[in-house]
Amino acid sequence: MNTILSNNIVEVRKLVKEQKKEGHKIALVPTMGALHAGHASLIKKAKEIADFVVVSVFVNPIQFGPNEDFDKYPRNMDKDKKLCEELGVNVIFAPSPKEMYGENSSLNNNELTYVCPPYNVVDCLCGKSRVGHFDGVATVVMKLFNIVQPDFACFGQKDAQQLFIIKKMVKDLNLDIEIVPCPIVREEDGLALSSRNAYLSEQERQQAISISKSLFYIKGLFERGISDVSILFDSAISVLDKNLNLEYLEFRNYSNFEKVNNASEGTLVAIAVKDGNTRLIDNVIL
Amino acid sequence: MNTILSNNIVEVRKLVKEQKKEGHKIALVPTMGALHAGHASLIKKAKEIADFVVVSVFVNPIQFGPNEDFDKYPRNMDKDKKLCEELGVNVIFAPSPKEMYGENSSLNNNELTYVCPPYNVVDCLCGKSRVGHFDGVATVVMKLFNIVQPDFACFGQKDAQQLFIIKKMVKDLNLDIEIVPCPIVREEDGLALSSRNAYLSEQERQQAISISKSLFYIKGLFERGISDVSILFDSAISVLDKNLNLEYLEFRNYSNFEKVNNASEGTLVAIAVKDGNTRLIDNVIL
Repeated sequence: MNTILSNNIVEVRKLVKEQKKEGHKIALVPTMGALHAGHASLIKKAKEIADFVVVSVFVNPIQFGPNEDFDKYPRNMDKDKKLCEELGVNVIFAPSPKEMYGENSSLNNNELTYVCPPYNVVDCLCGKSRVGHFDGVATVVMKLFNIVQPDFACFGQKDAQQLFIIKKMVKDLNLDIEIVPCPIVREEDGLALSSRNAYLSEQERQQAISISKSLFYIKGLFERGISDVSILFDSAISVLDKNLNLEYLEFRNYSNFEKVNNASEGTLVAIAVKDGNTRLIDNVIL
Repeated sequence: MNTILSNNIVEVRKLVKEQKKEGHKIALVPTMGALHAGHASLIKKAKEIADFVVVSVFVNPIQFGPNEDFDKYPRNMDKDKKLCEELGVNVIFAPSPKEMYGENSSLNNNELTYVCPPYNVVDCLCGKSRVGHFDGVATVVMKLFNIVQPDFACFGQKDAQQLFIIKKMVKDLNLDIEIVPCPIVREEDGLALSSRNAYLSEQERQQAISISKSLFYIKGLFERGISDVSILFDSAISVLDKNLNLEYLEFRNYSNFEKVNNASEGTLVAIAVKDGNTRLIDNVIL
């Protein structure tokens, strides 16, 4: 299987158009590279539902805050390419920032057209500490959608807020694309896979186990009939490693993103912690 | 020629897709209805360059301010349909606000995903008095683009700032659409055609002639070698009817929208006035 690696928008568009002419269905898997088994599961899903799979690898500068890890975010194209080849990916689209954002002297909203998701779903959870993050995400995903024009796009459930925002964007802006959510992939001990896990020291890695543990603990209590959020919250905190710095642990209605006081089936339980210097997120749907 | 009138997104998408399968090129002419000869020129251009022409007729609530003329904006579907039939339009897409914006309880950026053009080109000229206007324009045009998925979209040069913003959106968000600008159509006495001209009393209509006169006066002076903007500005003001209320008269580089002190070929000269209660705009490119 020959995987084409392209960093050129015009070329990728041409490759996709040839496939569309044949009546083939296109799936896009947007990534920031440093691919792991979580990404692999997205790619496998994409292969299942479409004839032609494009994986984008782009560490998007406009979704990182000034004090975040844009520069040190892991990049390993050789390894990524090998995995994509093994999985039968048709095209890897790995543009430079210049290819994506051109010659604009700044990449802020003074000079660039942005896609801005609604405040109600942006100004909470990860959006609270990562100001502007989801504008950057929505904007780059819109760009990727317009470049690749896929029939399907696969996103991981791990970034639950991102997934919600992308689905909302597709609905609000009438994009003709089906968003395919894919389940979180976990290590054997429960830790959700993330490219940022690579940052963890041995001790931090050990502490991180308690993140998913706290979520599963909530899930277990809920299944035994406890739905009061304050009880569920306190119980989860008691499970969480004391060395982790809790940013949020919230219960939200996953159809409208509103906070709930009583959990019910379908409630999103989302958590973010700082483990040393590394910010980690996870979630479960009850 | 049978012009199909549809208020349904799914139906319009289906009609366009059938045409695309045949290899036909699609042109979209976005309008707010109350069609006049200016719109007719856009439609004729669209017919020239494409095989299948969609005219959208939608008075877009989110581009009107709370004290603007959304309610009284002229609507006349029978007349619009007749003109479209005469011009050989294939589809009129005339959705309801509910078809476009669904069941959202509010249409502001707390609940809705918006497309936000860069501040630099929004926070000036019409955008200064019409706060939020261009976010509403960019958002609805993005929606129409995604619904119709045209190869071409025709916009009038009369709304010069809008045209600039749409072209910038297409570039920044990698839309695969060619924006086709069309020249301003004028009455015999020079007044730029606008659906809002219908609001004018006889006296106001008479006063309005001086708007284009002032622009042509500038153009004449420039062609005779005067490029100093303060001189051109003052001369134009002397031509403008004293009963008009000047909102702005500005000289801008039309490739980056920056203000210029010296006019040169390609400089945009844009004017907005209040004529009684009616806001009118016009422009020339030197």
